[in-house]
Amino acid sequence: MINKLIEKIQKTNAPIVVGLDPMLNYVPEHIQKKAYAEYGETLEGAAEAIWQFNKGIVDATYDLIPAVKPQIAMYEQFGIPGLMAFKKTVDYCKEKGLVIIGDVKRGDIGSTSAAYAVGHLGKVQVGSNSYAGFDEDFATVNPYLGSDGVKPFIEVCKKENKGLFILVKTSNPSSGEFQDRIIDGRPLYEWVGEKVAEWGEEHMGNGYSYIGAVVGATYPEMGKVLRKIMPKTFILVPGYGAQGGKGADLVHFFNEDGLGAIVNSSRGIIAAYKQAQYASFGEENYADASRQAVIDMVADISGALNNR
Amino acid sequence: MINKLIEKIQKTNAPIVVGLDPMLNYVPEHIQKKAYAEYGETLEGAAEAIWQFNKGIVDATYDLIPAVKPQIAMYEQFGIPGLMAFKKTVDYCKEKGLVIIGDVKRGDIGSTSAAYAVGHLGKVQVGSNSYAGFDEDFATVNPYLGSDGVKPFIEVCKKENKGLFILVKTSNPSSGEFQDRIIDGRPLYEWVGEKVAEWGEEHMGNGYSYIGAVVGATYPEMGKVLRKIMPKTFILVPGYGAQGGKGADLVHFFNEDGLGAIVNSSRGIIAAYKQAQYASFGEENYADASRQAVIDMVADISGALNNR
Repeated sequence: MINKLIEKIQKTNAPIVVGLDPMLNYVPEHIQKKAYAEYGETLEGAAEAIWQFNKGIVDATYDLIPAVKPQIAMYEQFGIPGLMAFKKTVDYCKEKGLVIIGDVKRGDIGSTSAAYAVGHLGKVQVGSNSYAGFDEDFATVNPYLGSDGVKPFIEVCKKENKGLFILVKTSNPSSGEFQDRIIDGRPLYEWVGEKVAEWGEEHMGNGYSYIGAVVGATYPEMGKVLRKIMPKTFILVPGYGAQGGKGADLVHFFNEDGLGAIVNSSRGIIAAYKQAQYASFGEENYADASRQAVIDMVADISGALNNR
Repeated sequence: MINKLIEKIQKTNAPIVVGLDPMLNYVPEHIQKKAYAEYGETLEGAAEAIWQFNKGIVDATYDLIPAVKPQIAMYEQFGIPGLMAFKKTVDYCKEKGLVIIGDVKRGDIGSTSAAYAVGHLGKVQVGSNSYAGFDEDFATVNPYLGSDGVKPFIEVCKKENKGLFILVKTSNPSSGEFQDRIIDGRPLYEWVGEKVAEWGEEHMGNGYSYIGAVVGATYPEMGKVLRKIMPKTFILVPGYGAQGGKGADLVHFFNEDGLGAIVNSSRGIIAAYKQAQYASFGEENYADASRQAVIDMVADISGALNNR
């Protein structure tokens, strides 16, 4: 799957991923109205609204991008109907040929991590049949529990040719509270990064490992160091755009081959029509605004990579 | 909700929680057969089997215990039907008057943590209506992202009178890989414990905070230290029984008032009938075996507390 992701990045010339993290207040009124007319102002209505919203964005952008990253929390907040919209979104993006990074940030003790891995990346056995629960291509994983919380995910990835992005240095303002604390002269995130590189050796693709890392765009200097600590690790870089990261900050997340990183933007793409820059598209044409925001993001990042 | 939990612990005289973490291979054959006869060997069939299994255990133990802790991964592995069984279990346990600790170990950047908090502990707004997605009483939370990943959960807890248990020192063998690393002379888990105590001051109940901690039974010496660092923090203690913890190891997780901790057992209770000690109950009477295992666990812990 890391090979497929790299192929798609090369084909689209776009080392980016669109974060499908729909909030109801991003969804244009005409979509909400239609969904509520059919299902009422219910969880089912909300789920239908975010699904139709997603579908519009995917239809308008899938030819330009290699991957999407749905954030499951934004669906889980609507309970079961929300999770059905998550699954529908994953299935639809797969039909469109996109790589799906399930941003689930799961992680637990061994037997429990195994269950999460099976549910999101693998197949569960029921009698003589087996079924995929959510069937993403990659999942994000929290490393706080250490190796035995991560390895069950890696086992399922090996079996299914799937991959992970493990949290190393997150994009949020307080990520340093624990992640930056100094241990034997080096911050915790470097120790986690080293472990990710080590885990990654267990499941290598062509050049890059199936086991990637998450490093926030908001910390470019740390990205530079982590790039060297984890040379064969693909880095998922959240925090571009709305969270503050810019193309020029991101060049050091990439290797000299122009690969090694994939930059996520969520709000900046899916709610582009709400920004002054794209307001002329109008709410009705929110998906066209998203398409233009993708084009601009790719230009920003490619420009920065070409100028380095 | 922490007050309700403490009241229920005092009323039942049982500082324990039953982990409803059903694996299909724990579910007696007669339950599986019946579920598959109705739904086939499908995700729906598996979900029906684990729900019926849970219901039997809850019916046989609810008068003896204050709380249950369903581990959502064990449901999530069966996709949407599994999560429907999770919700059914939460709702049923609530009907029975039990406190529900949703073992979800969520945690993300601020806006995403807010969505998880709403989904599991709060209510989401849809037009002019609001709905609870899963509606547990407590949720477990991963602290790796720092304060701004935790505070949105605390905000929802304040609004809804609900609580958290934040991972401090987990019960698994490799938990020390990052959690035990020394920072300024003290292990990371102590720094996290201090933060949990600080966060807890924001949302106090009568004597104890709504914001609790998770500390594994498998590390009793660390529990002793953490008990002192977080005097007003209720500690959820996993790892009793199947994972190796014993009653005598657990006394230092409790304060002198006999409160301050709640010990979880999952496999040891719900799959008791598979142990030599309870085999005489027979598979058909698995729930009676669970009831006896609860009685024995309470006696083990109470005995240890009385003898200290």
